Amino acid sequence: MTEFLDLIPPDDALRLILSNIETHPIPERVNTEQALGRVTVSAIPAPHPLPEFRRSTVDGYAVRAADTYGASESLPAYLSLVGEVQMGQFANLTLQPTECALIHTGGMLPKGADAVVMVEHTQQSRPGEIEILRAAAVGENIIEIGEDIRLHETVIPAGKRIRPAEIGGLMAMGITQIDVARKPKIGIISSGDEVIHPSQHPSPGQVRDVNSYTLAAVVRQVGGEPIQYGIIPDDRAAMEKAARQAHAECDALVITAGSSVSARDMTAAVIDVLGKPGVLVHGVNIRPGKPTILGICENKPVIGLPGNPVSALVNVKVFVAPVVQKLLGEHVTGLRATVQAKLLVNLASESGREEWIPVRLLPAGDRWEADPIFGKSNLIFTMARADGLIRVLPDATGLAAGETVEVHLSGVIC
Amino acid sequence: MTEFLDLIPPDDALRLILSNIETHPIPERVNTEQALGRVTVSAIPAPHPLPEFRRSTVDGYAVRAADTYGASESLPAYLSLVGEVQMGQFANLTLQPTECALIHTGGMLPKGADAVVMVEHTQQSRPGEIEILRAAAVGENIIEIGEDIRLHETVIPAGKRIRPAEIGGLMAMGITQIDVARKPKIGIISSGDEVIHPSQHPSPGQVRDVNSYTLAAVVRQVGGEPIQYGIIPDDRAAMEKAARQAHAECDALVITAGSSVSARDMTAAVIDVLGKPGVLVHGVNIRPGKPTILGICENKPVIGLPGNPVSALVNVKVFVAPVVQKLLGEHVTGLRATVQAKLLVNLASESGREEWIPVRLLPAGDRWEADPIFGKSNLIFTMARADGLIRVLPDATGLAAGETVEVHLSGVIC
Repeated sequence: MTEFLDLIPPDDALRLILSNIETHPIPERVNTEQALGRVTVSAIPAPHPLPEFRRSTVDGYAVRAADTYGASESLPAYLSLVGEVQMGQFANLTLQPTECALIHTGGMLPKGADAVVMVEHTQQSRPGEIEILRAAAVGENIIEIGEDIRLHETVIPAGKRIRPAEIGGLMAMGITQIDVARKPKIGIISSGDEVIHPSQHPSPGQVRDVNSYTLAAVVRQVGGEPIQYGIIPDDRAAMEKAARQAHAECDALVITAGSSVSARDMTAAVIDVLGKPGVLVHGVNIRPGKPTILGICENKPVIGLPGNPVSALVNVKVFVAPVVQKLLGEHVTGLRATVQAKLLVNLASESGREEWIPVRLLPAGDRWEADPIFGKSNLIFTMARADGLIRVLPDATGLAAGETVEVHLSGVIC
Repeated sequence: MTEFLDLIPPDDALRLILSNIETHPIPERVNTEQALGRVTVSAIPAPHPLPEFRRSTVDGYAVRAADTYGASESLPAYLSLVGEVQMGQFANLTLQPTECALIHTGGMLPKGADAVVMVEHTQQSRPGEIEILRAAAVGENIIEIGEDIRLHETVIPAGKRIRPAEIGGLMAMGITQIDVARKPKIGIISSGDEVIHPSQHPSPGQVRDVNSYTLAAVVRQVGGEPIQYGIIPDDRAAMEKAARQAHAECDALVITAGSSVSARDMTAAVIDVLGKPGVLVHGVNIRPGKPTILGICENKPVIGLPGNPVSALVNVKVFVAPVVQKLLGEHVTGLRATVQAKLLVNLASESGREEWIPVRLLPAGDRWEADPIFGKSNLIFTMARADGLIRVLPDATGLAAGETVEVHLSGVIC
């Protein structure tokens, strides 16, 4: 069991592999409408200010603010109504002193006007005359030119994952195409003499491939392009051949090992022959996932995950997802989707090991209760039954029932 | 301003429209590999138990537990090694008393065996003889037939959104295709005389369409198929024509109104002519989003959103996303991706109104600080600058700087 002599804390292990990845995302031009979830490769500057004209933020009357000073319900200012600004049209009039113009929300401010009085604070007593019942300050109810975005200001920074709000902002600037990072190709190799394709019926002793598909799904979620290299038997030559091909064709490679110790050792040996420096981390102080292997071969990350499906899924989130984000050049904030919940049972911590424990979340009034899912970690449905994971840090002495814990969510839309 | 006489609390408004939606999702068969984010239409039963044979969870020796009782380091049990179970193969041997067989993690238990002793608790002193250094209980280090999933047990319930873990579980059962809800078609109409297509250059007074694209992106995120009906001028006949077509062709319709009060009133009138019962809610006690209109026309939800881009984006999340989930038949848990953060400034609450306030999240040691983004709510980039939203309930008297608040995240992967 030489592999477990030096167990590295997961945060350190992740930092080590990330610091060895050079990010040169390849730009790919896409329609902004289709860019949801993609990552920008460079900062996008504003081609013009936004708005390009002074706009009203309310329905009301464009005025010269000075004409309204001192106006009140009991002593209104009387202004002559000289026109209406049509929506979507140039405000083709100029306000002279004591004049006003009808304007709608979003309408262009006429020349001479420097404020808008809300319609609620006016009244029309005679045709052509508006009573202003409240004074307006200069700039009131107006968006100035460039107040939203100034000329040449960065609209979207580099390394930003595009959300609906970014799509809206880009469209507002007329930027209908952008350069995003090409999806990094993540090669996936599943191994094990006992593993068969899911469409086959297993004979006694065989099991269907699970990890290729859960890994591919997580890679897709995070913005990579999974490329599956099938199921390789526990044979050194066959594994090396498949790994060399995947390493050559992809930007990163993930191998899920067969479940035996010898199969895992084989994965490490194969990573070492793929290129320098080879294995960086062999054994991580995490449970599940201790046998995880992290390497860099000729500038490409290569990760060996345990064959146990729960372990593979936890560690693809802990290690593979951040690697894909780094390859995308994403500026990662470290924000994670979590929910606070009351722990329902005592959790003894295996001292000195970071643990990720799957939990079910149960509604309890206006908060949540976290119910850990125990059972052998080889059970495939443990994760399907879970709503999220609790991370128990290695210095914790365990968690007590009733404590508030932070649950890392899976599959919530945000 | 008759529309604002009865402002309904947002939770009540949402409940009202959801309770009026009958869910009959149309099944669509997809490959399980491609089902990420889709929603199941019916419960999927297990076609066979999982595992289908008794498996070892460790590398070690399959034994008859009774042969190990009383075994210890100082007084080992001596068992005859009668063979090895090959991975992926039928365990073609039967253990007699005092016999054991080499077995690997995931290997099939041989007949006669009822426990596995980990290799770490054994030693081989002579060829063909294994010393057992620790007693094993019946069932130890074994997964029983059906322990993961029993025959006919529900593998995935109806209305479940497929995550990577569900894909893995389905593949393990050989279920390579499933029935998911067809994506509901959500018609989107943008309106306003001042609104032009993003590819056009605005003349003074004009602005580019933003809302069609942010709405479409949120609809896509939540699993619907957005269908855009373009930009309709503030003209009753034109709007009615477009709305009738979209209502006929789609499963739901969202109209973003022009920004003036009269344009919003027109939206309500058009919803009322599309079919019974028409407008259910006209005015919601939420900020931004007070002018939001919720209706049902001939069993199809129709929603009118304010034209203000921040307001449209907040309310598409609050109202449109749950409507799409209901149309999908999704079993909604109410879990939301949030993060706890320390509020940086005092927030006065507008008494009696539920408020959604965009915030930037700043790292502060191992926690987060929430910095509200103030400014006119018509600024398009407010949302692009925000990491999430704080929800301030109407009974709150405001929030004080230093308080811990819950921030609803946007665009975090989970």
